[in-house]
Amino acid sequence: MKLYGYWRSSATYRVRIALALKGVDYEYEPVNLLKGEQKSDAYREKNPMGLVPTLIGDDGAVVAQSLAIMEYIEETAPAPSILPATPGERARARMIAATIACEAQPFMNLRMQKYLREDLSLDENAVATWLDRFTGGAMRAAEAMAAKSAGAFCVGDAPSIADCCLVPQMYGAQRFDIDTSGMPTLNAIYERCQRLPAFDKARPENQPDAVKG
Amino acid sequence: MKLYGYWRSSATYRVRIALALKGVDYEYEPVNLLKGEQKSDAYREKNPMGLVPTLIGDDGAVVAQSLAIMEYIEETAPAPSILPATPGERARARMIAATIACEAQPFMNLRMQKYLREDLSLDENAVATWLDRFTGGAMRAAEAMAAKSAGAFCVGDAPSIADCCLVPQMYGAQRFDIDTSGMPTLNAIYERCQRLPAFDKARPENQPDAVKG
Repeated sequence: MKLYGYWRSSATYRVRIALALKGVDYEYEPVNLLKGEQKSDAYREKNPMGLVPTLIGDDGAVVAQSLAIMEYIEETAPAPSILPATPGERARARMIAATIACEAQPFMNLRMQKYLREDLSLDENAVATWLDRFTGGAMRAAEAMAAKSAGAFCVGDAPSIADCCLVPQMYGAQRFDIDTSGMPTLNAIYERCQRLPAFDKARPENQPDAVKG
Repeated sequence: MKLYGYWRSSATYRVRIALALKGVDYEYEPVNLLKGEQKSDAYREKNPMGLVPTLIGDDGAVVAQSLAIMEYIEETAPAPSILPATPGERARARMIAATIACEAQPFMNLRMQKYLREDLSLDENAVATWLDRFTGGAMRAAEAMAAKSAGAFCVGDAPSIADCCLVPQMYGAQRFDIDTSGMPTLNAIYERCQRLPAFDKARPENQPDAVKG
């Protein structure tokens, strides 16, 4: 498999965790978002949104969108599973993953923050209010969901796609000063994950395109 | 099964299509978004985001987020499948579904439009620019994706979760005057779907809580 991504991209980070949890080897091709490489025609041919990540599967599948990529990885490299055992538990894992991917992260990512500051001329207070309202609000909902299903991880005692999404979201929240103090379940899971080798391997700072700073 | 939803909600509409394609009977419980019923404590106990839809499964599972709900329906009522046959094709269906659910719809929904107008004081031109940039941009990407995989539907010749997401998105785009003229593949699929009984049954106007206007 080949993964096109960017070290600090939250969605790329999710996929790296999924690959690491399964022990799948892959080639990593950095796409420098700050240089606009995601907007090139060659890259958009693979990923028409001009976003990272994109995964190229061993069967030649070209897959964009981290939720779709993680399901593809689960189907093509089933063990260990990143989905719980029952349909109800799998639904909870996917629900938490989608709450982060559809409700929290789209409002926090770089292109959105750039639009808020540059096109809508929002000041830093207004951006902080935005981030707390949308991204923070979705994370508070994820906390309420995880509080009902968590064991050591978001759903029970094995890492799932929910945790693949949670860890990059907590990392992004720290980076952008979103208040997570009312999220004890998510914080405990985040701390626990950070101590595991697969999550450590996937960390932005441990990628070849990371910029020390 | 019991579905909490709202006739005009794009995400509820997706789930209604999935249920109708599978011929699954369910109880429908309207949640009136205009009256703020989604914000009640009783409803938030089921759906902490305070969004529709929520599905209650026959096993008691309480599932929010339409992507998670559709996967749950697929697992608990497998035939006919709303996922294609191979991992690569399933990935394409999920990719198009996620492009709509994570990149197009969050920027078009009512709470976002209300925030843009009321909290950020954007005028109608600025809202239209926003909708074209984010929602329109994601739909143009979905067009490019579907153009590579479509037969009669978004991926091949059977309806999938991609079409469950596409039809409500096209409906919403018409409602909010988003230009879809450069999307021939999506428009053709939309027209074809509208003529099928399952899609017709799921139409907002055919729901018990629909308001004629």
